Formats: sequence, C-alpha cells, structure tokens
Amino acid sequence: MKPSSFMIKARWIIPMTARTTVLEHHAVLIEEGRIQGIYPLSELPDWTHHLPVVDCQQHVLIPGLINLHVHSSMNLLRGYADDYALMPWLKEQIWPAEKQWVSSAFVHDGALLACAEMLSGGITTFNDMYFYAGATIEAVLKAGMRAHIGLVVMEFPTNYASHAQEYIHSGTAVRDQYKQESSISFSFAPHAPYTVSDKTFEQIVTLSEQLNLGIHTHLHETQDEIAQSLQTYGMRPLARLQALGVIGPNTVLAHGVHLETAELELLSRQGAHIAHCPSSNLKLASGIAPIAAALRAGINVGLGTDGAASNNRLDMWQEMRTAAMLAKVADHNPESLPAYEALAMATIHGARALGLQDQVGSIEPGKLADLVAVNMDDLNSLPCFDPVSHLVYVTGREQVTHTWVQGQLQYQRQAGGLQVFEQLDSEELKSIALQWQWKINAVRHRDQPAASKKEY
Amino acid sequence: MKPSSFMIKARWIIPMTARTTVLEHHAVLIEEGRIQGIYPLSELPDWTHHLPVVDCQQHVLIPGLINLHVHSSMNLLRGYADDYALMPWLKEQIWPAEKQWVSSAFVHDGALLACAEMLSGGITTFNDMYFYAGATIEAVLKAGMRAHIGLVVMEFPTNYASHAQEYIHSGTAVRDQYKQESSISFSFAPHAPYTVSDKTFEQIVTLSEQLNLGIHTHLHETQDEIAQSLQTYGMRPLARLQALGVIGPNTVLAHGVHLETAELELLSRQGAHIAHCPSSNLKLASGIAPIAAALRAGINVGLGTDGAASNNRLDMWQEMRTAAMLAKVADHNPESLPAYEALAMATIHGARALGLQDQVGSIEPGKLADLVAVNMDDLNSLPCFDPVSHLVYVTGREQVTHTWVQGQLQYQRQAGGLQVFEQLDSEELKSIALQWQWKINAVRHRDQPAASKKEY
Repeated sequence: MKPSSFMIKARWIIPMTARTTVLEHHAVLIEEGRIQGIYPLSELPDWTHHLPVVDCQQHVLIPGLINLHVHSSMNLLRGYADDYALMPWLKEQIWPAEKQWVSSAFVHDGALLACAEMLSGGITTFNDMYFYAGATIEAVLKAGMRAHIGLVVMEFPTNYASHAQEYIHSGTAVRDQYKQESSISFSFAPHAPYTVSDKTFEQIVTLSEQLNLGIHTHLHETQDEIAQSLQTYGMRPLARLQALGVIGPNTVLAHGVHLETAELELLSRQGAHIAHCPSSNLKLASGIAPIAAALRAGINVGLGTDGAASNNRLDMWQEMRTAAMLAKVADHNPESLPAYEALAMATIHGARALGLQDQVGSIEPGKLADLVAVNMDDLNSLPCFDPVSHLVYVTGREQVTHTWVQGQLQYQRQAGGLQVFEQLDSEELKSIALQWQWKINAVRHRDQPAASKKEY
Repeated sequence: MKPSSFMIKARWIIPMTARTTVLEHHAVLIEEGRIQGIYPLSELPDWTHHLPVVDCQQHVLIPGLINLHVHSSMNLLRGYADDYALMPWLKEQIWPAEKQWVSSAFVHDGALLACAEMLSGGITTFNDMYFYAGATIEAVLKAGMRAHIGLVVMEFPTNYASHAQEYIHSGTAVRDQYKQESSISFSFAPHAPYTVSDKTFEQIVTLSEQLNLGIHTHLHETQDEIAQSLQTYGMRPLARLQALGVIGPNTVLAHGVHLETAELELLSRQGAHIAHCPSSNLKLASGIAPIAAALRAGINVGLGTDGAASNNRLDMWQEMRTAAMLAKVADHNPESLPAYEALAMATIHGARALGLQDQVGSIEPGKLADLVAVNMDDLNSLPCFDPVSHLVYVTGREQVTHTWVQGQLQYQRQAGGLQVFEQLDSEELKSIALQWQWKINAVRHRDQPAASKKEY
C-alpha cells in the first residue's frame, strides 16, 4: 500500500528552472504522482505535518535524468567487441551477432537489464531505438520507467522485418497497441540517412505529421557517412534530410559530430534537437561534436549514452562529465559548457527534445514526480562547495539512493548499500544476463575460433 | 592478529605480465606481504589447504593501481572553483586559497582524505607533489598506502618556503627523516619550467644524482607555457630541460600535452616517462596529449588523476576509460590504446616510471602483494565477454571490494556495501572534511562576496 501523498526533505534541491536557483533545506510535496509544491523546511504548511517523509537531508534532489539516445537491448552485447575499427566492428562483430541473436526475447531481456542499469543510475526516461519495439515496451512497463520509443525503419532486412514497409507497418501496430500507456510515447526512427531511402523518409514525414509523432535518427556520426552521401546523393546528409522535410522541431538527431557553421544555423532555425553522445563518439573515434558552438547557435542539446556495445555504460553521470570536459578542450575554453549546462542537457533539455517539457525535466508544481536523490554524505564527495559542480564533476552513479518515477520509488540504494528495485529482482536479472552470456559465448567460440584466441 | 600467509581465490587474475594472459580460476598465495605463487585452483599444492582463503570467485584480481601524478592534499579544495579559465582559476581562486589555507595540518588532512579515496578506488601507490611533504607522509603511513613523494621546489615564496634553497633544504630534511620507511620513496619535484630557474634545475640534477632520486615535474601542459618559454629562454621548455640535464630515465613528466614528433623521439631516446592526466587536460582545456603517438615512439606512459581541484575525482578507472577513449578520437583510430594498454598504463607502466617495477605493478612471485579485487557480479557489468575490456570500459570504482597493500587488507567493501578501512575511520574523515569546508566557506564568503552571488 503506497501513500498517494508524501514529502521529500532534501539538503539541496536543484529544480532546473533557472541557473542560479539552488534551494537549501526545502521539501517537495508529491500528490498522486505529481509535484504539488516546494516549501522551505521552516515554512511547511501545518496540513503537511501528517504526511509520510522521505529524509534526504544529506542529499541533492534533481529531476530524473533523461537518456536521449540509446539502444537499450544492446545491453546483452555490452563489451562484446571493443577496440575495433568501425567497419570491422559492425560487419564482423555486431551485425553477425545481431543476425544470430536478435529476437523478441533478446530485445525484452536486454531492455530489462538496461532499465535496471538506468533506474539505478538515476535515469527515469530514455529515448530508445531498436528492433521489436513491443518487447522493449513490455520491459519498460515491467521496470516502471518512462520511455520514448523509436519505431525503427530501414531498407535492409533483419530478423525483425524484411523491407521498409514492413518496419513501418510493425511500428505503427506497436504504437496502436500501446498508445494508451501514459509512460510510453513514440517517434518514428528511420535508422540513418545511409540506411533509409528518400521515398521512405518522405513517407515517414507524412505519417509522423498524421500521427503527431516525432522523428529520431542518426545524423553525421562519421566523416564516412558524409563522404558516402556526397557521392550517392550529391549532398551532405543534413541537406538531404532538410530537403526531404525531416528536420523540424520534433526531430532528434543523434550524434551530430560533424556539423559546419551553416548546418548549426539550419538546425537552430528549424528548432531540431541534438542528442550528444560523447563517450560513444570517442570510443568509435567518430570525432568530437561542436557542442559549445551548437549551444551558442541556440540549438537544444540533450545527452545520450548510446548502446552498451559502444560506450559501454548507460551512465548519464559519465556523459555529463565527459560532455562538460570535452567541450572545454574542443572549444579551447575552460568556461565552455559549465556544470549547470551539462545538468540541463541531462534533464530539461532532454525533456524538451522529446516534447515532454511540460511533464518532466524539472522540479515544478504540476509536473510528474520523476525525481532522483543523490547522496552527498560520501567520503569521495567531501568537501562540497557547490552541489551543481559536484553533480557533474564528482558524483558517481552509485551515489544515487532513490529514483522515483511518477512518484513511485522504483529504485533505492539502502544505507547499507543494498540495491532494491520496486518491480525488478536483481538476482533474477543477473541470472538472465548470465544465461545470454553463456549462449552467446558458446556460439561465438564455435563459429569464430579467432574470438577464442585469447587464452581465457 | 593477521595471518602472515593466505590465499586469494579469484574468478580471473590479470597479472599484467603479457597481453594475452588472463588466468581463470586461479589462486594467489601471499606470504609475509609478498606474492609467493599463482596456482590453478585445480592444482593447489596440499600444503596450501590449511591457509586462510579470501574468496573472490566473482571477481577480477589485478595489481594495485598506480596514480602517477597527483597533488593529494588538494582534496580539501575539491570543486572549490570550476569552469574558470586557467589564469583566473589560478590567480583569483586557487593561489589565494592556498595562501590562506595551506599549512602542515591542511596538507595532512587533505592527504588523508585523498588516501581514503584512492584506497577505496583500488589505488595502492601514488606519485605526489605538494608542499609540506612530511605531513603527506604521515597521512600515507596512517592510511597504510605506498607513495612516491615529490619534494617540491620553486622559486617563489609560499607558506611552506621562501626561496628555492629553502624548498630544497626542507625537502632533503624530510627525505632524511623518512628514508627508512619501506612504503615511501622520493623524487625531487621542481614544480615546472616556468616556476624554476636554470640554476635551481642544475642544482636539482646534481642532488638527484648524488642521492639517487628521480625527478617529477610538470611539462608542456599548456600552449601558453611553451610560448612564454620561447619568449624568455628562446626555446621550448623540453629543449631547455634537456639542455639542463633534467630529462632521463628517472624523470616523470606530468601532462606532456603539447609534444612534437622530434620531442617524442627525444623522450623515447632519453627513457623519460609521461604521466598522462586526460581528465585534467580536458577540464582545464589544456589540450589532448598525443598518447597514441607517444606509445608508438616507445615512451613509457602512466596515468595520473592530477589534484582534486582540477579533475575532480582521484579515480583511476575514469582515467583509464578517458585515456582509452580520447586516444582513439585523437588518433582517428578506434584500435588505438586498447583496453589492455590502458590497464598497463595504470599498473606496470606506472611502476616502471617510479623505478618500482621490481616491487609492484604486476602479479608475479616475489613482488609485493599490492592487489585489488573487483566485483564483476554486478548488474551493470553483465554480461561479461572480456574482463579486461570490462575493467576499462565498464567498471566503476565502487566495484572495488578489496585493496591490499603489501598483503594487508587496507580497504574492503563488504557484501552489504559497507566500506571499511583497516587503519582509517570513514566517519572521522567525513567530519574532518566538513570542518575544513565550513572554515574555508566562512572566509570565502567574508572576503569574496562575489563567490556568494549564487543564491545558495
């Protein structure tokens, strides 16, 4: 029996409503899954005194983090193949593994593991793109998270579908099946300019207008992608997508590593959003995205982890820190992308990119209570002169002690360190992960003796 | 009463003796603080059966990590001033704070906090550079770690000393006082080319030869440093130090961000070592060090966290991951700096840089038992196809469950999550950190109203 109203008393609250607002010794009141109000502890209304209290008086309370680009089910291929060049990585490792393994069951189990990883790291919403969207949604509902589901479309056949029409058909069917779920929203996810034809993009633009859905796609991740587009289409991918009507205020572009000044201006004018994935871009040697310049151009930029095969952590704390640090060196300016901006990218900017800014992304009366408490009474976080700076430059995801989704405590790290999910069983999840590990390893060592050349 | 002999049974052991060697289901035998042998669990000698066993059968056992560049006492200024340009950061924030606060007590307390942070993150040895070296050593002995202490020398006056001769005198006195301590070794630490004169460098070279000490200095951290040297000395700092006889096989150069091909060749020829500090270099916008090229040139490169005012975590896991990822993008090659190489930089390469390679840095019979166990039975680390890749790309420092220094279990994270130091008290350390936080904040808000302009 869960109370429909309760109060969180926090040492600090960072509501993400204005750069300089850090509330000290305040309480958030939650009613029926929504934020009812924020009060100084010294001015709590009398009628609140009977409410149950969650004591976070050594904690920072922030809005739930929003992972703006992930392939959640790839958690089952975490660390499957690292330190490879991009094409051998895809062609010799990832694509054959996906062909071998990807099924509705794989997608469900991978997404469930990803949900657990994300909840325990303070992520309450993620923007996904993968096959078998229905299986991902089932995992999201089981875990009690919020997700924006990309209905993937590409031309070439996979286990999931044979051609673009079939992808679109399967995607819209999934959307019809789950559109009543309040924690699930949708966009079309044409995979990338190099895997989707003009005709299919045009169809998706029409459909997304009819159904009022956004569009989530990869864009300008590598120089190769751009060179190939110039050769095939005589223009850069962004110019092509713009000509096809893809680029607008409901478009989330993952990566955006290689963007020229005029392209940044275009994105700003069109109101499109970038999902910056710094760790993935470094690890695959894709490049360093011009994020400081994108922010100066007025583009809304959120942060994504990308999938666990190319990061290999679904850890928004790592992405915040990496984004803030990398922007400084790329911009030759240590003042670029200060801590608050990184935190905004991981919260309210992500919400805006998904059209969820009226529901989540900040701590304001009326919004859904997607909230995260972070323990600052931690030897590695002391002293603390500025909680915002600490959240970005110091905090590890293990300091997350409470993750609420719509007022439900879905994850808790108890004082002793024990991790408890409200709707998931850690030991069962570990066992699922190990079963996949054994299955995948057995086939790999049979089919690719080269992969066994390591002594172990 | 601690047993002088015991055995650690591990799921995996990464001895760091050869790239392809990962031992599965082996045990390490420890006697009187040294590694006696490594045996497959199935072939344990009969006489070992009575020994106490530490069960790490869901863990990876690795050599203790070596932090090759840190100013440990700056833990007390963690997050004191972030997102500032380098010169305002130093001149308006860090130097005035140091002038106000740095004392023997500050150095001791800061170093003690740093030791706790490092031990709990699997660091067993660190290469320090700060004022009041004696106070740092007292903290190291209290914590039960191993440290290589840089005896800092500069021309300008600080709370610690008035001029180069006084720094040298104080440093050699500290070395004389503690030279019998087996866990402490020393080098001279002329701070940087821009704070130390030719005459003083020459004197240090002579003294270091006489006393058989190494040299630890900052080098080519920023472009400004190089431009200033060209103006003042008519040559780049490395050329100047080479001419002064500073650069040799006992020299550790921190940062080395800006190094030309001929300079890499020089360092390789001279057998000098680089302490690569990727997080600090990003955060201060110093640049991206050419580490892949340095490795190809045959230079021995270790990893450092730098101090907590410029990182802000003394976390070698973050440095390994950042180093591996950053080298790929900087080298335009995702095969650059693979996981094993990053782990080697954090262990055996660091040991080599400090001249400790016969004592620590790998798991080999006869070496000191500086060992770290990392829990891989962690929801966020499953599945696991390659433990070496997971250590670098996935593992967080909170997965460290045991840190042994010379066979003594100095840190343990128990199954419930409780953190226990053998010789330190976490609650006492937190209270020390908070006391400094309050003192420092009180003065800051009195003297620098601007620092209070944030609302909280």
